[in-house]
Parts: sequence; structure tokens; C-alpha cells
Amino acid sequence: MHFLELIEKKKLGGQFSKSEIEFWIEGYAAGDIPDYQISALLMAIYFNGMSKQEVIDLTMTMVASGVQIDLSSIEGIKVDKHSTGGVGDKVTLILVPLIASLGIPVAKMSGRGLGHTGGTIDKLESIAGFKTELSTTQFIDQVNQIGLAVIGQSDQLVKADKLLYALRDVTATVDSMPLIASSIMSKKIAAGSDAILLDVTVGSGAFMKNVENAESLARLMVDLGEQVGRKTIAVITDMSEPLGLTIGNRLEILEAVDILKNQGLSELRAFVLDLAEIMQKLAGYPSNRAQLEQNLLDGTAYHKLVEMVEAQGGTEAALLKPIEATYQETYSAKKSGFIAQLDALILGEVAMYLGAGRQTKTDTIDNEVGIVLAKKVGDSIQADETILTLYSNQRISDSIYQQLERAIQISDFAQSNPSIIKIIESEDNLS
Amino acid sequence: MHFLELIEKKKLGGQFSKSEIEFWIEGYAAGDIPDYQISALLMAIYFNGMSKQEVIDLTMTMVASGVQIDLSSIEGIKVDKHSTGGVGDKVTLILVPLIASLGIPVAKMSGRGLGHTGGTIDKLESIAGFKTELSTTQFIDQVNQIGLAVIGQSDQLVKADKLLYALRDVTATVDSMPLIASSIMSKKIAAGSDAILLDVTVGSGAFMKNVENAESLARLMVDLGEQVGRKTIAVITDMSEPLGLTIGNRLEILEAVDILKNQGLSELRAFVLDLAEIMQKLAGYPSNRAQLEQNLLDGTAYHKLVEMVEAQGGTEAALLKPIEATYQETYSAKKSGFIAQLDALILGEVAMYLGAGRQTKTDTIDNEVGIVLAKKVGDSIQADETILTLYSNQRISDSIYQQLERAIQISDFAQSNPSIIKIIESEDNLS
Repeated sequence: MHFLELIEKKKLGGQFSKSEIEFWIEGYAAGDIPDYQISALLMAIYFNGMSKQEVIDLTMTMVASGVQIDLSSIEGIKVDKHSTGGVGDKVTLILVPLIASLGIPVAKMSGRGLGHTGGTIDKLESIAGFKTELSTTQFIDQVNQIGLAVIGQSDQLVKADKLLYALRDVTATVDSMPLIASSIMSKKIAAGSDAILLDVTVGSGAFMKNVENAESLARLMVDLGEQVGRKTIAVITDMSEPLGLTIGNRLEILEAVDILKNQGLSELRAFVLDLAEIMQKLAGYPSNRAQLEQNLLDGTAYHKLVEMVEAQGGTEAALLKPIEATYQETYSAKKSGFIAQLDALILGEVAMYLGAGRQTKTDTIDNEVGIVLAKKVGDSIQADETILTLYSNQRISDSIYQQLERAIQISDFAQSNPSIIKIIESEDNLS
Repeated sequence: MHFLELIEKKKLGGQFSKSEIEFWIEGYAAGDIPDYQISALLMAIYFNGMSKQEVIDLTMTMVASGVQIDLSSIEGIKVDKHSTGGVGDKVTLILVPLIASLGIPVAKMSGRGLGHTGGTIDKLESIAGFKTELSTTQFIDQVNQIGLAVIGQSDQLVKADKLLYALRDVTATVDSMPLIASSIMSKKIAAGSDAILLDVTVGSGAFMKNVENAESLARLMVDLGEQVGRKTIAVITDMSEPLGLTIGNRLEILEAVDILKNQGLSELRAFVLDLAEIMQKLAGYPSNRAQLEQNLLDGTAYHKLVEMVEAQGGTEAALLKPIEATYQETYSAKKSGFIAQLDALILGEVAMYLGAGRQTKTDTIDNEVGIVLAKKVGDSIQADETILTLYSNQRISDSIYQQLERAIQISDFAQSNPSIIKIIESEDNLS
């Protein structure tokens, strides 16, 4: 087999066999096929796509390229959750202890943030002392002891995806549906959980800019998960405005704590409860909102988070420590009306410029800075009333305010965004 | 400017400005942009094409990436000729001395063969002593003294195309119309002639497999040439069967000599005269077939070839030396009828396997071997009559004969291929 023939085949719209995909992925991972041939193939895939069977074969070949985590020594159905990324997305920080508080084990690997999007691992590391690097044995032991653990994704997981993703990132081939689906699902499958909740975000702050594309991606991943024996449900969720009220690592930790203490923004609380019900279902239980509400109300869910923080090297005091930022400046409404837009992409970028995110992979993060929203889309507002507060450890430049002006719109009538736009299940689950 | 944005732009169907193309080509030639980004762009160009203006800008930017030959010290309109490649194509060997015999200066750079196609430089080097590497000064001096010179293309010419072509070759991005057109035309423009005859071959032995594509390519190159001030005419010619009767370097030299001595295959003679008339026109003269016929008849054209061979280190005796090959085997017709197919691709590959061509760039060529056809498509043939003779210095294997069986078809009715399928001129020239 010559790799050149595979490029030609895909260029002309052909479909790869399993052995052709193995030749490609194994050859690339072994360093036998050069980057410049792989990038030409990736661009051909961007244009000509892949069949469902090709995506399954690609995913499973990528899974086989690295270590696969065996969670079988943890009793029960292990449920994982993945978000395709967003701004202010602290849902994992709330969901994991909430689900664990039901006695459903959660052994989760998470990622870091880049650009305008945040990452759960960065957020957890903003808690002083919190360790996100555990050995697999430590990871499994912790879940067996206290029912939950969240760690960084092992370097040994899905090695081929690491290589491919780095190449896609510099060759404008990230936004290919089959490549996105196989990248996400290979990592989830290798991470070993039995069931997967996929949060496919859509809107300015998300990777997917329209609902149709988000739905296609969601359906592809749900089918893929079911085909390889992982119960999978996807939710399409809004990311046109930030999730909740905060952007920035420690600000988001504190907001997650608020929700777990049955406080905070009611829409975020309701959203998390919706997702938790789906995770109950994925774990093989009937969904039970009353139980979930109870565990928020009586502190059981919050206590699970504290347990996890302490098990991984942090303290409750570090978890709850108030924000310390040199500058706190408010941004107020120019006129009265209703908030019509809080652009997630721009606000994510503003938070990044304040130091809350990375522009490049090697940047360091300032955990104390970010944005706290006083209003959400659909809220009424008076002229000069505060829309948001900026937290910064450096002087806030005029250009930040120019960006805020672009990000925020006020209109004469109220309209708001639904949190969950759609739930995508495989046809088997719908019965 | 970030190169990643240029890939994205072309991926989405955008058009490059001149400065964007310069950024790309100059950055690649300088080693600032890696192969893996260029190959992704090339594949995006394969799918989304380029506008005529982009092709012009790409061509002229590539021209500027290397040395440009200044032929202004040679008096008169210098005419170049280029073929997109074929099997048994010895036309340049005949046309150059024929045109020079009219007093029209020809300062030509040619290439080598690869795979089933031959190259003029390989053919000339099969004449003992013939040198194809001259300095630019020697090259121009020779044209000023005797009116013609054919040398190998300088390594310093169109450096960006050298890099790009090598990458296209290993990334399945050779067959892109704008990339083919800019590659060919950049070399012709840099080589300095005032007018260009393009022979765009079509058929199994050619790069273009159908007339529509060949015509699109021809029209693009003619427009491009005219836009940058080079008078350009293209002919679409048949390459479904080999050109003339011979394939193999010295065999083709001897066939070229035959035509220049007013002997040989009448169809090849007529074809060369048709092209020569177009070259007269390109050089600013009225076409004069009678004069061309006269120069073949009285030996003037042949004498020009001898002059060039001697000027470049060879001798007339070396030029005329008969073929010496250990094995000469004939292949005969299985039945009577008319020759319906002599597949140029397969016959070119057979000649290559006999040693007449290169499978890889570093292979050496056996100049004494090849194929001599006794028949052409449309000729009548009796059972057991010779169709062709193989010349080889190694035992001829059974697989060669199996290939010949695939290459040759005999039918019950006569049909033949026109040599020139179409002539493409710019609209200005048609008036």
C-alpha cells in the first residue's frame, strides 16, 4: 500500500477500508508517513468527508494507538461527560460531585483551555494544592473510595489524535465533522467509561456556529458511541452568551460552589439539573430530579466536591478563598432596555486578554482575574446600571472597553436563549 | 499575515491578492512556511481552484523566485515550444532545426523524462558527446552564431516551482489546472522567449485524459501568456497512441533525422510542418509551408541539426550511428483487420521496462533500447504480420508480451486519430 494512493482515493471521493485507515494511522503514529502527506489527506477529508463506517474505523484505530483505561475494577456504570468547549463553562465542576452524590461513580479525564475557551483542568488547578496528575491506580482507587475523581488526560491516551490534532491546528483542517467526531470519541472511548454525555455547544463562543452543524456532529458521535458499545446521549446547548455569570478560573470555581450550595443563577442550576437527569438515565437509573434537588439542598453534592478537592491535595479553605484582584472595574449600560447580546466569543477573548486564558499553549494563566456578569441575555437593564465587572491584575486598557462595546447589545424588547436546544439520542434509546 | 489564514481562505473558496500569493511563494522558497502547510493549501486549491488573475499572479511570483534568462542580445523574435508530455514525442528534435533553418532563432531549454514519458534532454544526451549543460553566455553565443541551441533547464530557474512540484508529486496534487498552468508557464516565461507554442497532449499517454480538460488547460495558458506579454498559441494533440514510429532515446533521434531528411512517416512529417507553420506565425512571419518543405527537401533543416550537435560536442557520425541492441524481437498480429489501439501509456511503460525510461528520478537509461512500430492506428494488418519490434539488452520477459496484448487492439473497420485536435489562440489573435 502506498500512502499517495490513499490521498488520491480520498481526493476522488473514495471510501477507506479498515486496513487502509490502520495503514494511515499506524504509519503516521510510527513516523513512517510525513506530515506533508497527512495534511494533504486531511484537507481532502475536509472536502470529501468520510462515511459513518470510516469514522468508526478511524476512531477505533486511534483508540488502539495509545493506552486504554480499564475502569472495570470500579463497580457500576461509569458515566463520562464531554463539552465541545465554551466560555464560562463550569458544568463539569458541578455535575461530577452532584452525580457522585447519587452513588454513581465518576472517573473523569478533562482538558485544558486555549484561546477564548476554558478547560476544567485549569479551573481545578486554580484551587491551591489541587493535583490533576494521578497515576491510573491512584485515579481508580480514589473513585472506589469516594466515588469521584477528575484528572488531566494522560499523554499516553490516543497518541495518534495528539499528532493529528496538532497538525490539523496548523493546516486549517480542524473544522471537519468526521475528524472532530473521531477526535472527541476516541478520547472518550479510551478513557474507559461505559456511558457518555456529550454537550455539543453552538453559538459565537462555540466551535459550531449553527444548530444544523452541531446536530450533525452530535448525531454522528451518538451513532458512533452506540456502534462501539458506549451508551451515548448528546445535548445541543447554547453558547451564544457565556454559561452562568462568571468567566475566569477561580471565579468559575466559586460559581460552581454557589450552585452546589443551592445558590447562584437559577438558569444555570436548572441547566445542570437537566444534564444530571440525563446522566442518571445513562447510568441505568430512572431520572430523579427530586433526589438531585435534595442533594443540592442538604449539602451532599457540595460535600462530594470538598471530598474530591481534599483527596486530590486541596482544602475547603482554598476552594472557598475569595478573589483577590488589583483592579475591579464595572461596565455599565449606555441606555435602558433589555440585554440582547453578550457575545461569548468576544467576552471569552476579553477574559483571555485580562490573563484568564492562554493565547498560546505555553502562556501562564492568572487564576484571580476574569469577568462577572450582573445580567444575562433577556434581562431588563437601566441606563448606567452595571452589566458586568472586570477583575484584573493589570491596568484595563481602552481596547478592552472597545471590545465590550462590540460584545454587548441592548434592545427594546426581551428575548432570551434556551439552555438546551435539543437532545440527541440513538434511535434505540428513543423506544 | 499568517499562512494559516491563507489556507483557511482558499478552503472557503476565497481569492488571493497578489501580495498574499507573494507571501506564500516567497515564504515557501525561503523555508519559512513548512511543507505540511503548503500541501494543505495545494489540496484546497485542487478543490476550489484559482481565478485567472490568481494564476497570473502565481505564475509571475514563481518566475521572480529564480533566475530569468535575458535573450534580448539575440536579434529577432525568439520562439519557444513546450509539450505537456507524451510517448515517442521527438517533435522538438525536428522542429528546432527546421525553424532555425528559416533564420528564426531558437534558444530552448528542455526537460528530462519520467515514467512512461520521454524528455528531449535525455534524447539529445543519447548522442555520444552531446552536452546539454551550457552557461547562459555559451547558450546565447551559440544561438547568435548558428541560430539554435537546446540545453537542460537551469537549476536556478523558477526555484519555487521546483519545490512546489516536488511536493505536489508526493501529495496527489499534481492534477490541478491552475497549478499545472502556472508551473509550465512560469518556466517558459523565465526561459526568456518572446513567443510560445504549447503542445497540450491528450489521451492515455498524456497527462490530460480528455479533450475538455486539455482545452481548459490550453486556454488558461494562452490567456496567461498573452496577459504577461508573451504571444502564445496552444495545440491540442493526440497522445492516445505514440507519436511517430519509435519510442526510446536513440531510436527517436534516428526517426527525427529521417523526417529532417524528408523521409519517415508522412503523418509525423505533416504534423511537424503544421506546428512549424504556427511557429513561423508566432515569430511574426507569414506561414510558408512551401519554404518549410523546401528546407526538409534540400537538407537545410537537417544541416541545422548537425550544426547544433557539433556545436554542443557531438558528431554527425554519433548522430547517425545505428542501434545496437542484443535482443530484437517482433510482435505480430493474432488476426487480420485494422489497428484500432496502440495504447500510448502501456507502450511507454513497456519501453521504460526495457530500459528506455526511468521508473524513479535516479534510474539510468539504456539509450539503445525501445520500440519501433511497423503500424499505426488505422493501418490494415494481416494475421502474423509484424506490428512492432522490441529492442532490448536484457531477455524480454513474458510479462512484456502480456502488456503488449493489453496495449494493442485490432478491429474489423478502419479508424484513425487526428494529430492536431484543436488550435487554441487568444481572442486577439483570432481577428
